[in-house]
Amino acid sequence: MAYIDLQNDLPGIRGPMAFSPETTKPLNELAEILLHSEDNTLSRGEREMIGTYVSSLNDCFFCQNVHGAIAQHYFQCSMSDIDAIKKDFSTAPISEKLKALLSIAGSVQKGGRHVTAEQISLAKERGATDREIHDTVLIAAAFCLFNRYVDGLNTWAPQDRQFYTDRAPMRAAEGYAASNPHR
Amino acid sequence: MAYIDLQNDLPGIRGPMAFSPETTKPLNELAEILLHSEDNTLSRGEREMIGTYVSSLNDCFFCQNVHGAIAQHYFQCSMSDIDAIKKDFSTAPISEKLKALLSIAGSVQKGGRHVTAEQISLAKERGATDREIHDTVLIAAAFCLFNRYVDGLNTWAPQDRQFYTDRAPMRAAEGYAASNPHR
Repeated sequence: MAYIDLQNDLPGIRGPMAFSPETTKPLNELAEILLHSEDNTLSRGEREMIGTYVSSLNDCFFCQNVHGAIAQHYFQCSMSDIDAIKKDFSTAPISEKLKALLSIAGSVQKGGRHVTAEQISLAKERGATDREIHDTVLIAAAFCLFNRYVDGLNTWAPQDRQFYTDRAPMRAAEGYAASNPHR
Repeated sequence: MAYIDLQNDLPGIRGPMAFSPETTKPLNELAEILLHSEDNTLSRGEREMIGTYVSSLNDCFFCQNVHGAIAQHYFQCSMSDIDAIKKDFSTAPISEKLKALLSIAGSVQKGGRHVTAEQISLAKERGATDREIHDTVLIAAAFCLFNRYVDGLNTWAPQDRQFYTDRAPMRAAEGYAASNPHR
């Protein structure tokens, strides 16, 4: 049960988001631009995977399943394929560029100072642009916010992972700009 | 030097914010609502102090000095008073309620799951409302984003702490809604 009376029974981030519509507006706008905007050379699946990976490192059940299911939808793969990337992206069948970006995201999760010049150089060698590196750092940082918002208030989450898979196509189509509680 | 070409020489978060105006808009809106809005029972100084404390735990020099100086401005105290709160808030001359909220913020900095029911109960016993607890968690989570954005891209920061103190009155008056690069 959530630590405060959210005045609704919505799961995960949707609970506090409905409780606080003023702060939800910029949070959804940020998510829409970072994850769903078409004006980005990183695919939607790659961006969702970065958020999923950070959420798994932060041990946030709700976020890693919501966004893992959306990444699964975009990648047209299985839940176990997403789980394998979360567990060890270095051996997963993803691009070398995405591996370098996930490495950066993993360091951002620990703290900004953990990102090294070597990680950045490797990402650039593998074709990552300055914009892609910027967006990777900001997506990883944003999920460090979202994950803490969800778990810091002790929100509940559906435990059946199929729930998230079933909703992913709708969520992918809608994006994040829609007002609560329709997210 | 920043890890990517930010196409400007602005310090701290202002560098990537000017590089990426689309994402800056919701980030500034979020900061304005959380830290500067008058519609809040936590004072601006208390909210800036929560952000300052989290930034110090994340070892983000730029953010802890920008927001520490603004807290100092609102509290009408000295730089060493702010440093004393960062170092050990339990013995500082601040309210018992703010101490309980800083304790929650410190746990959010470690990760959302670190916040305990006991911390929440103590804050409520000391008069914190559900809204104040919500805002404390979200401010702490937001600074976990801002700090990572600043340091994950290895931005530069003025090292003379007086620089931040001198700018604080202007920043406090302007708030966060203004467009870059005038922040």
